Order: sequence, then structure tokens, then C-alpha cells
Amino acid sequence: MSVTAVAARRGRRGIRESFSDFASASPSRFALIVFAALVLVWTGLLALPISSAAHTATDFADALFTAISVVCVTGLSTVDMTTHWSGFGEVVIYIGVQIGGIGVLTLASTLGLIISRHLGLRARLIAAGDTNPLRSHKGPVSESQAVRLGEVGGLLLTIAISVVAIELIASAIFFPLLLAHGFTLGESARDAVYYSAMAFTNTGFTPNSNGLIPFAHDYVFLTTLALTVMLGAIGFPVIYALARVIRTPSERRRIVSLHVKLTVVAYLLLFVIGGIVLWSLEHDNTKTFARLGTGDGIFQGFFLSAMARSGGFATFDVSHLHNSSLLVTDMLMFIGGGSASTGGGIKVTTLAVLFLAAVAEAKGVESMEAFHRRIPGDVLRVAVSVVLWGATIVAVATVTILAITHDSLDHALFDVISAFATCGLSTGLTMGAPTPAVYVLALTMFFGRIGSITLAAALAQSQQRRLYAHPEERPIVG
Amino acid sequence: MSVTAVAARRGRRGIRESFSDFASASPSRFALIVFAALVLVWTGLLALPISSAAHTATDFADALFTAISVVCVTGLSTVDMTTHWSGFGEVVIYIGVQIGGIGVLTLASTLGLIISRHLGLRARLIAAGDTNPLRSHKGPVSESQAVRLGEVGGLLLTIAISVVAIELIASAIFFPLLLAHGFTLGESARDAVYYSAMAFTNTGFTPNSNGLIPFAHDYVFLTTLALTVMLGAIGFPVIYALARVIRTPSERRRIVSLHVKLTVVAYLLLFVIGGIVLWSLEHDNTKTFARLGTGDGIFQGFFLSAMARSGGFATFDVSHLHNSSLLVTDMLMFIGGGSASTGGGIKVTTLAVLFLAAVAEAKGVESMEAFHRRIPGDVLRVAVSVVLWGATIVAVATVTILAITHDSLDHALFDVISAFATCGLSTGLTMGAPTPAVYVLALTMFFGRIGSITLAAALAQSQQRRLYAHPEERPIVG
Ligand SMILES: [K+]
Ligand SMILES: [K+]
Repeated sequence: MSVTAVAARRGRRGIRESFSDFASASPSRFALIVFAALVLVWTGLLALPISSAAHTATDFADALFTAISVVCVTGLSTVDMTTHWSGFGEVVIYIGVQIGGIGVLTLASTLGLIISRHLGLRARLIAAGDTNPLRSHKGPVSESQAVRLGEVGGLLLTIAISVVAIELIASAIFFPLLLAHGFTLGESARDAVYYSAMAFTNTGFTPNSNGLIPFAHDYVFLTTLALTVMLGAIGFPVIYALARVIRTPSERRRIVSLHVKLTVVAYLLLFVIGGIVLWSLEHDNTKTFARLGTGDGIFQGFFLSAMARSGGFATFDVSHLHNSSLLVTDMLMFIGGGSASTGGGIKVTTLAVLFLAAVAEAKGVESMEAFHRRIPGDVLRVAVSVVLWGATIVAVATVTILAITHDSLDHALFDVISAFATCGLSTGLTMGAPTPAVYVLALTMFFGRIGSITLAAALAQSQQRRLYAHPEERPIVG
Repeated sequence: MSVTAVAARRGRRGIRESFSDFASASPSRFALIVFAALVLVWTGLLALPISSAAHTATDFADALFTAISVVCVTGLSTVDMTTHWSGFGEVVIYIGVQIGGIGVLTLASTLGLIISRHLGLRARLIAAGDTNPLRSHKGPVSESQAVRLGEVGGLLLTIAISVVAIELIASAIFFPLLLAHGFTLGESARDAVYYSAMAFTNTGFTPNSNGLIPFAHDYVFLTTLALTVMLGAIGFPVIYALARVIRTPSERRRIVSLHVKLTVVAYLLLFVIGGIVLWSLEHDNTKTFARLGTGDGIFQGFFLSAMARSGGFATFDVSHLHNSSLLVTDMLMFIGGGSASTGGGIKVTTLAVLFLAAVAEAKGVESMEAFHRRIPGDVLRVAVSVVLWGATIVAVATVTILAITHDSLDHALFDVISAFATCGLSTGLTMGAPTPAVYVLALTMFFGRIGSITLAAALAQSQQRRLYAHPEERPIVG
């Protein structure tokens, strides 16, 4: 090996090591920079004349908004997504959604790992548990070291393989259904791949201008779509546990952690309650469900309940919903999906922990409990921080949007929460928003996506010991 | 003493003791029953023909709504309060407001005492502290016994004396101001007493049909009104500490507890931020502040900020506010006043505790800290329970009101939060609401008032020890 080659290799190793050090020193800042960089590159690509159907440069605000919507798998749009972009633009969007989806899953899983490892060390707690995907690659996790980029690489590979496998299965189901709807072989293949990516990454864009309307009564199509969306929204820890349970059913008890149980129960409970409430409120609305039969109406109620968490596909114009249903959808969107998922919102476990804290308080027991496990008290502090952060973003963005547009709270709150929780359903406010409002919604999407996955990690990173303690005193609350 | 007299005395003592036992066994149920009984009696009185100006029986829904609005010192109305009632009806309302105000202060203080005493015993914590009003009557509080009715009597006396004293001072300031506005001696005396009661109890009814409009530019009148409202809304522990500091300034350090400091800082901070934000949003609204000069506009912004917390007086029709300002007012109302106050909402210390939890998490310190004191972790659980309870009431009531009235979220959320937080400001929705919506708002007022003061006590009461513990496990949140 020549001297130059050794030097070059040293240089590469040096860069790689400092990159690795930087990533492990402040993983939340690393995640922020990765997403900001993706957004900048995609803004540049989408602004190119080659990306637009008219072959003219796209307005900066629209390019930025679309880039954030794509990379954060939100699905809101300020331009007509089916007519504005060229074939090249559509490929850029497709790749952006896949990278965004895999990126979110990888970063959120890694940061979740760092939190549980860090806190596990600090407070002598059981670490991420048996659902920790790293264990399959690296054996038992050593709690005394930082997460290294090599480990993240292994996790990234596991996630990428899972995403490809799930999307292939979904495509294989969509393909014959699309053929049956009269699409050509080429169209069916393209749309099957497109729909499966848009569903599993929870983005919610549709390939054709009339959206889901051709499939509004195809229960097999809609159910496949909803299940793919729900698999993406429930989160990678649950998918991973599910896959392992299917492979080794005898070890079910050891595999299914508290996090998985809590996520599945909270997710399904909210899905069912959401469906029932939405149908009850809408069954007499002549613009939505009253046109349909009872069975069809109930199906559409549950479909909307699933899409609020944060799939974003719609079989009808959601601005036709009653204001009461818009508010219920707001709540479902704000709660969102599971942790380390392509779904958004504050996450179902965050709400579950708040609820368990209230239950523990009401029962008068010392600690939060679920499924015969105690939940450490500091988890509540992280949950409170996440909700406070989410509520603050939504409140500030909504007040700002109202001040700019003078639209109704019904519409402003809906589109802001849809942006925050990366849901993508819209009352139409986003499409017609003036440029300042477009920037506010773009920031809301970005911080809604990045905030929730980095905040908890940033909080956990900053743990420090105090050598002194103040005397204790108790304020009255409530 | 005859045998009969001894038996009668024993009977009375027996009743008194079992009453006392009942009250101390479940103080939150006791508070609930006291308020429900007051509501029933006042509904009966207000439904009487003698109470209405037309001398006809008032509709049950309106009588019930007014009774709850009066006893819970909310200030919302479904009938024109200045023309509907007779002189007798107005006296019933005045007495109801005073009893409601003093009752809320007494119950909330007592329950606060029970909580701190109970938890103090359980977790070896410093009890209510030096601002504990009971100490001045009974010496140091023994933590090993339940709160007895005798103690509550002492507290009730202290509170009643304070209320009378404060209202007398306020009346003495209002009286010459009313005379200067051209009211007769009799009108001025009556209205001075009326305004001071409506201000200190945070009810917000006005004696004349044009409300505060004659005083809309009388800064002395409005400032007196706002200060009286704020004194009521900041809470009895703060008033008590303030009174003791004025008497013995040298002992200031010992008297001013963490609760008092936290309440005053959070209350004033929200007041200032609210005033600035409301003025910024409204300064260009030709229906509200744009008509006024800059100085006048800023004054009105701060006045509205004070009244949102939960005074409920308004110098203009709040439905003319921009939707953005309505939402900001919603937030101020939801937070409300201090604990053990005539104000409503989740209380400023509840928000402060959530905020301190997030700060502690961000700084990575083990426990919440403020003013060189640590706050025990279980206070956070009570705060989370109070917020969850409040958010649930507001969400369910708003969805129901929207489903009944099909009004906008801007108006429905405003009137529901106003009812929940016993604020009394209204967009007009309440006045024109159909009967089912009137009942929903009435329930919201009742549970908003009773819930927040009894929930914390009910939670604290139910503390129990577990002889076994589950293994600990940590779900991912956010
Ligand atoms: K989405
Ligand atoms: K009030």
C-alpha cells in the first residue's frame, strides 16, 4: 500500500470517527441536522424546472413546503400534487417519502434506544427490553457505552429490509385490485408500488387527481390501505415484536414488552372509540355519511379514525365534516401513532402514561402500573414535556395562522394539528394559504416531526447529578 | 337539667358528630353534596314567580342554569340578568354569589389543608407551611388527626371576615366613583356593594343593562374593579400571606411559602403576557381596539387579560374579537386563577408544576425545583390528573355543544371554557343556546367548579399502601 493510500485511509477513518463521535455526543442535534439537510436537498431538487410539469422553476415557498411535507411524510400540499410535478418530480417525491419514512423509523428507534440505555444506566432500570431490535444483531446490549454508528447501521438495515418486505406484500395485494378497477398493467404496477409506499410511510399522497374516490366502495382496497397505514403508524418496536412472535410463538411472553402491549391496546382502543364517535356524529350529515348505508357509514367512520392517526388518505372532502367531527379528528390526530413509527402526534404511549398517572393517583398507589409492571416516575416527566411541547407548537401556530388568515378556528386548528402530527388531512386552508401562513405550516410540520422524536432524547441526554439538594416544599395544585 | 333535655342534647351531639365524621371521612363527597344542595335551593328560589320581574315562574332550565352560575360564581346567563329578575330575585342572586364565593374559598382551603396534611403524613413532607390559615386559630397543626369541623369553622370565620373587609374597602372606592358618574346616593350605594361582591367573588354580573360601558374610559373605576377581581382570583393562601406580611414585615421570609411565590409569579407573568398578546392581535381590529388610542388599547388589552382569569367583566362585546384573540382568551381562561380562590380553571400552580417538570427534565436534574425548594414528584401526578380532568370536560362538552348547535368551534370552545373555568365571558352562544345545550353548559360549570377543588382532595384521600410491588419496566414516550 502506498503512503498516499494509507494517508487517504487515515483521513477517511478520521472523518468517519469524528462523524461517529459527533452523532453519539448529541444524537438529537444529529437527527435535526440530518432532517434539515434532507429538506434542503429536496427543496433544491423540487425547485428545479425539470421537476415541474410546466418545466418552470417552482416557487421557493411551495418547493420548501413540499420538501418538508415529503421528507416528514406529512402529505399536506400547497400545489396540486397530481398535476404540478413532472415524472422526474414524482420520482423525487417517491424517493423522498421512502427516505423520510425509513429515516424517521431509524432515528426514532436509535434515540429510543439511547434513552432507555442512558436512563437504564442512570436509574438501574430494565433497558429497552426484549423488543430491542439491536439485540438480534449484536447480542445483549452493553449499557456502559454510547450507541455507535455501526449499531445504527445494523438497525437501519433491519428497518430498510422490513419496510421493503411490508411494501412488497402490500403492492402484491394492490396490483390485482388496481387491474380489476380497469387500470393498465403499467399503471397498476406503478400505482401499487406508489400506494404501498404512501400508506406504510403514512404520507397519504395519491397518484391520480381524483384520489381515493374510484375506490370509495372497494372494501378490500380500503382495508388493505388502512392496515398498511396502521402497521406504519403503530411503530417499529411493535412490528419487530410481532415478527418475532410469528417466528417463535412459544417465546411470546418473553418477547412482548410493556411498551408493545401498551401501544397496541392504546392504539386499538383509540381507533375503535374514534370510529364509533365519528360515525355517531356524522351519520346524519347529508354531505358525508348520510348518503351511505349504515354498514358503509360505519366502515367510513372507522376508515377516517384510522387515517386521522396519521395516514391522511380520505375518501371524501373532510371540510364537509360537521365541526364536532373536525374537533374529534383534531384530537385523534394530536395523539397520533405509536413511538418510533412513521405516524406523528404526541404518540399513544405518551397519552397512556398520563392516563396511568391519573389512575395511580385515583387508586392511591405509589407508582404507575400497567400489565403487572411498574412504570418509573421519570417517564411521566418526559410524557409531560412531550405534551407541553406539542401543545405549545399547536397553540402558537394556530394563533399565528388565525392572525394571518382570519379563517375559522375549526379550519385553522385542523390544518395546524394535521401539520404538527404529520397527518395530511386538510380542510383546504393549506392549499389556499398566503405565503406567511405556508411558512408557519412548514415550520409546524418540521418541528412536529423532528421535535417529538428528538425532544425525549435531548431531555434524556442532559441528565446530570446534583451534589446538593434544596429542602422540599409542596405547592397546592388544582 | 331534665332527662328530656339531656337526651335532646345527646341527640344533637350525635347528629353533629356523625355529620363531622361524614365530612372528614370523605371531604370531597361532602363538598359535592354541599354545592349540589346550594344549587337545588337556589334553583327553587329563582324558579318562584316572586323572583322574576314579570312575576311568572321561570323556566326550569333557566332557573337551574342561573342557580349554578350564581353558586359557582361563573357569571354566564341564559336570561337577561338586568331585566329578568325582580328585586327579590336580585337579592337571592347577591346572597348566592356571596355564599358561593365564601363556600368555594372555604372548601378549597379545607381540601388543600387535608391534602397537604394527609400527604405530609404519608410522605414525611412539610405540610401546608406557614401560610396555613389554621395555625393562627389552633396553634401548630397536628398532622396525626383528620381535619375536624371545628377547624373548618375557624377557617370559615377567617375567610368570611376577610371577604367582608375586602369588599367593604372596594365598595368605599366604588361609591364616590359611581356618584361622580351621576348615579343617585341610593343607586351608588347599592351598585358599589354589588360591584365589589361581583368583582371579589369573580362572578362578573353587572347591575345595569349597559354593563361596564358607562365606565369604559374610567381608568380608576376599571383598575379598582380589576384589582378586586385579581385579589379574588389569586387565592386565599396568597391573600392571607399578604395580610400577614403587611402586619409583620420582618417575618416576610418565614411567611411567604413556595406556593405563594409560585402563584404570584405565574399569575402576574400570565397577566402581562396575556395583555401584550391580546393588544398585539387586536390593535388593528376596528370593532375593538383600533377605535381607541394606543394607551387606551393597551389598557383594554390588560383589562381583558385580567378578566379572562376569571373575572368575566367586559367593556365591549367579546364576540367582536378576532378568532386569534378568542383562542388566546380560551387559553388564559383554561389556566384560570390561583388555588383556593374564587377564580376557576386548572389553576396557575398546576401549569407551573407541569412547566417545572419540563424544565427539570431539560436540565437533567432529579427533581422539580423553584425558589430553592424541591417539589415532590407526586405533586406532578396530581397536576397531570387535574389537567386531564379539565381537558376531558372541555373536550366532551365542546363536541356535544357543536353537535347540538352546529355553531363554530371559535364560539363553542370559548363559551365551554368560560363555563368550565367559571369565567363568564361569552360570545353570545350561551344566551341563544337550545335547552339541551343549556344543560350541557350547566353541567360544565358545575363540574368545572366542583371538579377542580374536589378532585385533588379525592385523589389524596384514596392513598393506600401496597404490600407487593410489580417489576419495573419503561415504555417509550414521544
Ligand atoms: K401523513
Ligand atoms: K366569573
